[in-house]
Amino acid sequence: MSERLHAIYHVRAEASTIAVRARGIAVEQSVEMPLSAIEDSSILSDIVGQVENITDQGNGIFTVRIALAAVTIGDDAGQLLNMAFGNTSLHDDVVLHDILLPPNAFPGPKHGLKSLRARCGAATRALTCSALKPQGLTPDALARLAARFARGGVDFIKDDHGLADQEFSPFATRVGAIAAALRAVARETGRLTHYIPSLSGDLDTMRRHARLARDEGLACIMLAPMIAGVTTLRALARDFLDMAIFAHPALSGAARIAPDLLIGKLFPAFGADAVIFPTYGGRFGYSQATCQNLANTARALGSLPIPAGGMTLARVPEILDFYGMDTMLLIGGSLLDAKERLTEETGRFVHAVATH
Amino acid sequence: MSERLHAIYHVRAEASTIAVRARGIAVEQSVEMPLSAIEDSSILSDIVGQVENITDQGNGIFTVRIALAAVTIGDDAGQLLNMAFGNTSLHDDVVLHDILLPPNAFPGPKHGLKSLRARCGAATRALTCSALKPQGLTPDALARLAARFARGGVDFIKDDHGLADQEFSPFATRVGAIAAALRAVARETGRLTHYIPSLSGDLDTMRRHARLARDEGLACIMLAPMIAGVTTLRALARDFLDMAIFAHPALSGAARIAPDLLIGKLFPAFGADAVIFPTYGGRFGYSQATCQNLANTARALGSLPIPAGGMTLARVPEILDFYGMDTMLLIGGSLLDAKERLTEETGRFVHAVATH
Repeated sequence: MSERLHAIYHVRAEASTIAVRARGIAVEQSVEMPLSAIEDSSILSDIVGQVENITDQGNGIFTVRIALAAVTIGDDAGQLLNMAFGNTSLHDDVVLHDILLPPNAFPGPKHGLKSLRARCGAATRALTCSALKPQGLTPDALARLAARFARGGVDFIKDDHGLADQEFSPFATRVGAIAAALRAVARETGRLTHYIPSLSGDLDTMRRHARLARDEGLACIMLAPMIAGVTTLRALARDFLDMAIFAHPALSGAARIAPDLLIGKLFPAFGADAVIFPTYGGRFGYSQATCQNLANTARALGSLPIPAGGMTLARVPEILDFYGMDTMLLIGGSLLDAKERLTEETGRFVHAVATH
Repeated sequence: MSERLHAIYHVRAEASTIAVRARGIAVEQSVEMPLSAIEDSSILSDIVGQVENITDQGNGIFTVRIALAAVTIGDDAGQLLNMAFGNTSLHDDVVLHDILLPPNAFPGPKHGLKSLRARCGAATRALTCSALKPQGLTPDALARLAARFARGGVDFIKDDHGLADQEFSPFATRVGAIAAALRAVARETGRLTHYIPSLSGDLDTMRRHARLARDEGLACIMLAPMIAGVTTLRALARDFLDMAIFAHPALSGAARIAPDLLIGKLFPAFGADAVIFPTYGGRFGYSQATCQNLANTARALGSLPIPAGGMTLARVPEILDFYGMDTMLLIGGSLLDAKERLTEETGRFVHAVATH
């Protein structure tokens, strides 16, 4: 039999209809035509999706495992999503729950936990991060903000994912100003805070901006793979071997693709060195079990989990107890709310993580 | 006040909580931080999203209209999705229902209905299309299939969206073989059937393949914008002014972004000359109202609607009565099921459309 990978779906159905529905998904996600019209027997045996297992989860939900032919996908990240969930994403009775990939189907992260730890000289503690916002600020205002975070001792500062290449803050000007501000703080303190600019636009623009970031001495970039396209993530990971890539979850529509699969497994497989995700207990609704599984899956693939989305200083001990030290903590808006005490509040964040 | 565009959401909430929830979305989709921490009053007035209207739809669903600052988006298709639904897509109580764009915010299609009609010499009737499948066939087998469809007189033939750049059918070999087969049929019949190859991979690969298609004399290409990234669609529309771009709905996860918005409005705005969508009454669950609205919206923007996904010959009159003549009909698997009578069945399809 041809090499297969396994897609696992949660399907809402009746016990009397699930077998037919499962076969329907297997056909939709492979040949997408009546099997009766296929004359080549090797296509029926080697290409058509095969229903391997159906399990009743109760509450009208069934787990369906379907074997898809690896040869229909190759090493194309977009084609993986296409074959696993392309048309079936249009059906509202199905969630893509997991994909079991053959080993080394995709190259995975180049700069995971170890590399990011090394850049900060943080051997065992969790890493810290904050975010530059709100959008609407000028590059100079963002650079002053970055300097205050840096004086507080945070390891990384990321752009708000809303910052793009806008009139009020063009990418080139912003990145230049912020990188310069962080170098200036490093000359005072002896400690460089790493800046992660957010890339937007098409692949050409992202490449141009990534080169610009590299020219400023930066070694990290961020993008939202579900907006940019997963093949864009793969292309950047291949073209910028020296830069760590942070994946942002925007537009991940996680109600239909399980977040631990999409963010925890696929983004790392496609080259994300670190994955930002909305933690339980914040502004988003992921369960503890989902978050734990997402973080563990990402780590197992060599990618650094970054719980975010409503984090506060008060929650640092709880979050570290839950996720452990192989984690980067990202507090954004809640630090900004300290206003004139921002540097001190950032210092408290850094201290809380370092001494946990 | 700064120029605004308007995002309209359907939100599941209680009457007592909807006002707070709506303000939460407005903040999440603009500055994503506590408003109390924003010191610049022009950001509060010009950048922060503003809740303009909340309407109770009954059944626990509210329509919320939020004004977003146009300057946060510019002309970046990805940034539009990011600002309209980036983080909010992660919340399962919200569907992005519509976006009201400023006029000419995006360039829109270049080769819509009129141009596609002219290519086929079809002044008023609906256009016809079929699909090459199953994947697993060799380029030669696909080319023979294409020739049989062409002898039946169909206007367009598209690749199955599962066809990529696979071992069993590499893009270059496939496109060369199919284009040659269609030219050979045209020499016999005097009538050229237009071939629409499906692009996959990253932007570089898609550009290389689009050039290859152009070198074969082809003038149409297809891609799935939600897999490739909407900025990839925009880049191809800009780079291949002479080619018509067909948008495939794979991974559109339409349960969370209204399909008439995503497929009917945004794909055309970003440059799709024709949009394929799953029609009511087929394998997918869109309502007649959604399909009607999707088709009308696409047409109003100059893009050609292509109902598909379980179409049959028997449904041609009904579908034409419903969608009208400014439509391309796509029948794939159901024609293939005719097997050795494929050319004749294609001829009946073409005749049914021409004489309706």
